[in-house]
Parts: sequence; structure tokens; C-alpha cells
Amino acid sequence: MKVRGTKWADEVYQGIVRTGFRLKKRVFKGKSPFQTVEVVQTAGHGKLLLIDGMTMVSERDEFVYHEMIAHPPLFVHPRPRRVLVIGGGDGGTVREVLRHKSVELCVLVEIDGMVVDACKKHIPLTAKALSDKRARVVIDDGVAYVKKTSERFDVVIVDSTEPFGPAKELFGPAFYRDVRRVLTPDGIVVSQGGSPFYEISTIKNLFRLLKPEFPVREAFLFNNLTYPGGLWAFTWGSVKRHPLRHFDPRRVARAGLPLRWYNADIHRAAFALPQFLRKALK
Amino acid sequence: MKVRGTKWADEVYQGIVRTGFRLKKRVFKGKSPFQTVEVVQTAGHGKLLLIDGMTMVSERDEFVYHEMIAHPPLFVHPRPRRVLVIGGGDGGTVREVLRHKSVELCVLVEIDGMVVDACKKHIPLTAKALSDKRARVVIDDGVAYVKKTSERFDVVIVDSTEPFGPAKELFGPAFYRDVRRVLTPDGIVVSQGGSPFYEISTIKNLFRLLKPEFPVREAFLFNNLTYPGGLWAFTWGSVKRHPLRHFDPRRVARAGLPLRWYNADIHRAAFALPQFLRKALK
Repeated sequence: MKVRGTKWADEVYQGIVRTGFRLKKRVFKGKSPFQTVEVVQTAGHGKLLLIDGMTMVSERDEFVYHEMIAHPPLFVHPRPRRVLVIGGGDGGTVREVLRHKSVELCVLVEIDGMVVDACKKHIPLTAKALSDKRARVVIDDGVAYVKKTSERFDVVIVDSTEPFGPAKELFGPAFYRDVRRVLTPDGIVVSQGGSPFYEISTIKNLFRLLKPEFPVREAFLFNNLTYPGGLWAFTWGSVKRHPLRHFDPRRVARAGLPLRWYNADIHRAAFALPQFLRKALK
Repeated sequence: MKVRGTKWADEVYQGIVRTGFRLKKRVFKGKSPFQTVEVVQTAGHGKLLLIDGMTMVSERDEFVYHEMIAHPPLFVHPRPRRVLVIGGGDGGTVREVLRHKSVELCVLVEIDGMVVDACKKHIPLTAKALSDKRARVVIDDGVAYVKKTSERFDVVIVDSTEPFGPAKELFGPAFYRDVRRVLTPDGIVVSQGGSPFYEISTIKNLFRLLKPEFPVREAFLFNNLTYPGGLWAFTWGSVKRHPLRHFDPRRVARAGLPLRWYNADIHRAAFALPQFLRKALK
């Protein structure tokens, strides 16, 4: 993200497209052992969190991503009590998880303490959830954590960056074997799956990794303003729970959560895949 | 769209966000009485058609827009024979309309002959449909055309730019009165409705215009790579036909069209609106 000499925070993707947000000022920039972490104030999208120049969170539309990564699995699991979030140090996913009254504990395992600290200080919109008494923040490698932990979880959410840098191992087969081990029998794992337009290989690869562990494998889609192409995917893996066959819209109505994006119709709609993607995942 | 001094074709939207496509070369630039018309070759998105610097069509993802503006109404009308497209001089909407065997005539009314000529020469992917024997191209103002024509249509598609410049009158009440007059009793009108994220007023205004004429009013959503924010809306107006209650997925299966985006699940999913939009349109 270049600031000097321009008023735009630009993210160039695949060398062919760039998305820029008009900049007001830089709020924070630090170099951790893992990556460059930045927070900037924009003219029209609130604050942005950037990691290695890629937009991770914008205050204007983060609600879409965070509602869509959390509520589909939490409304399909029969009674989610313990949730593990890997990555997502901004806290937005934890905020949505904790809206569910059945949740007793949400563990966030973030590899980079600088992300958590920067968001706590500069993006309370998402990070204030990390101070909830039901949240436990662990600064550790998510891959190592699921390998060694003896704890069990009802839902695991892999709220990761793209499959390179510190997130690389999250896209390996050993990780999903361990995820299955830490999941309870009705457990569900949801993972960030990249852009179906630009990088269909990410979803295909996740399906390949999920296959030996999870008979139920699906992809679902969400929209946002800040990731290249606007339309991105999550994957779903479970031994037992199917996102549509085990979905009861009355649970959403009963919960009455104050959401801006997710509802029962959106839940079902998210799993409708366009023709080209349906064919690619067959 | 600035070409000199940069390799990016950038579209700035609302002064707060820009989307840029890496440029290879300018293919065409002309100034018509209505607007500036450009065709450029990009590094990763094929050719783009730009009007007054706004991306209208990219070869890479135009199929989404054109399939989503055409197939929902054509699969819900009981037997569409005559279709009117207003705007859309690139020809992509006409191409999708003509995939339906029942269609005997598709009239395209485009105000700017330069758009049609530039696309016929440089973007045959969309414009070759305009040479089909069931297509009739009329270079005229769409507002004047629906006011004076004695022809009748089963589906009207308003494939317009944003509500300023030559498209402004397409967002006025007189236009929708005339649209109703030219529609057959089972008729449906679909209109480009802007970005629900950035410009919810466009959809709200269209709903207000549709209200006196059409008891059935709905909005539906589609994704694309080239319009700001990625997620955009169409509106639906009809005296009788509801997009879900009168939708039979078996018709889609029977037709067996070679599509890349639209299918019966996508049809239903498109009408699922996120919470904030549902509230705004109440």
C-alpha cells in the first residue's frame, strides 16, 4: 500500500486489477515477525486494516464477512457451546460468534499479536469483542494449536488470509486432520476460500483437503467491498451437519439477532453456486 | 479513464473508491453527441467498454450481468415472444434474450449509435447477437420510443447506465407509465438498479417509480468484477408475474441453455435480500 505521493490506498491483485480507497491518513504501521500490519483512515470506508498491503477489514462493510463466516455454521450446529477461531485477530468473527447465547467460550488463536494490539487500539468496532469474558485470545500458530490442544470445539472457523505467508500451513492436509480431531461429532469447520472469479484453485484445493475428513463439503458465497472482485467464498466441512438439510430458519427468527446482512433467506441463497463454480467443484 | 502516464484504466466512484484494470492498449475512443465512448484492451479482463470513463462491459465477466438481467424475467414470463431492450448497445443482453427459442423478436433501442458501432467492430463477444435475424436495432431515445410505439412486448429490459447523462429520463415516472402501456398483460420490466452498498437511493427511487404501475415489485442482486462494490441490483416490476411464485425450475432444466452463471438455484438466491436492504425497501 503506497501512501506517499498519492491519496489512495491501493491493493493490486494478480497484477491485473487494483482497488483503491481514498486515504485520509495513516493511523498505524508496524512490522511484526510475520508481516506488515497497517491501519489507515479512509474518506469513505472508515478505517482499514491492511496486512502486507492487502485489505483485511474495512469498517464500512466488515459486517458482511463476519456475519457470513459465523452465523451459517452456528445456526446449523444443534447447540454450539465452544467455538475456535483461527486467524481473525481483528475480532470481528468473535463478535458475531458471541451473539449466540449458547456459546460459552470462543477461543481466538492469532499468530500475530501485533494484529490484535493494533485492532484493539484502532478498530474497536471489531476488536472490542476480544475483551468479552467468554472470549479467550491465544497468540500462537493455529496449526500448532490444533495439533497439540486437548480441547474440543463445536465449530472451527478458519478466518485466514490467502494461502501464503503465515497462513500457508492452514492450507495443508495435516491441518484438516487435526481440525477433525478437535471437532465434536456434530462439528463444522468453515474456512475462507478466496475468489471464485480470480482464484478458483483455492476453493478446489480446500475441497481436496476436506475430502478425506468430512463427508459433507460445500462452498458458500458472500459479497464485500474490499476484496478483489467483490464475491468471495467460504468452504464448509462436517462429518454430519449439512448447511441446508440441517438448517431451521425458525432458529434464526427466534434468536432475533441485530444483524445487517445475514437472515434465513441469505443463508440458503449463499449456498446457491453459479454454473461455472458448480461444474468446477464436481 | 486516464491512459497517459499510467498503465491502469481507473474508474473513480463517489470520490472514495477506485477500481483499475491493467491496461494493454486503447482500441477506440470517440465522442458522440451523448458521451465519450471508449474500448480498451486490458491485461486480465479482455476488452472493456467505457462510457464517460465508467466501465460498462468487460469481456471477462459480462456473462454474469447479461445472464442475470435476461433469464429471470424470460423464465418467469409464461411465453416470451417479443422483448424490448432499452440501452445495452453492446448487445450482451440481446444475446441472452435470443437464447430463448420462444423469442421471435428482440428490439434494441440504443440512443447512441457510436456504442453499437464500436461494439460491433471491437467486442463481437456481445455485439454479434445484434446481427441475428430476430434482433432489430433502433437508434433512438428509449423514452421517446416507448412513448410513441404501438408495438407490444412481453418483457422490457432497461439496460441503462446510471441516472444521469442520457439515461436520466429513464429514471422518471413518465417512462414507467409508458413501459406499462407497451407491456402485454403478463409483462415484466427489469431495470438496472445500481449498487445497494453505495447508492441504495437508486433502488428506492425505482421502487417509487414502479409502485403506481406494478403491484409486483422486487429487487434482485448480481455480482460482477467491474462495477464498484461488486454487488449490484436489478429491479422487477409486473402487474401479475412474481419472480419466485411464478418460477418453475423445470423450465430452466428443459431449456438446457449453455450458461456460465444462471441456474434455477441462482434464480431464487438472487431475490434473497440482505437485512439492511430488506429494511430499506419496506
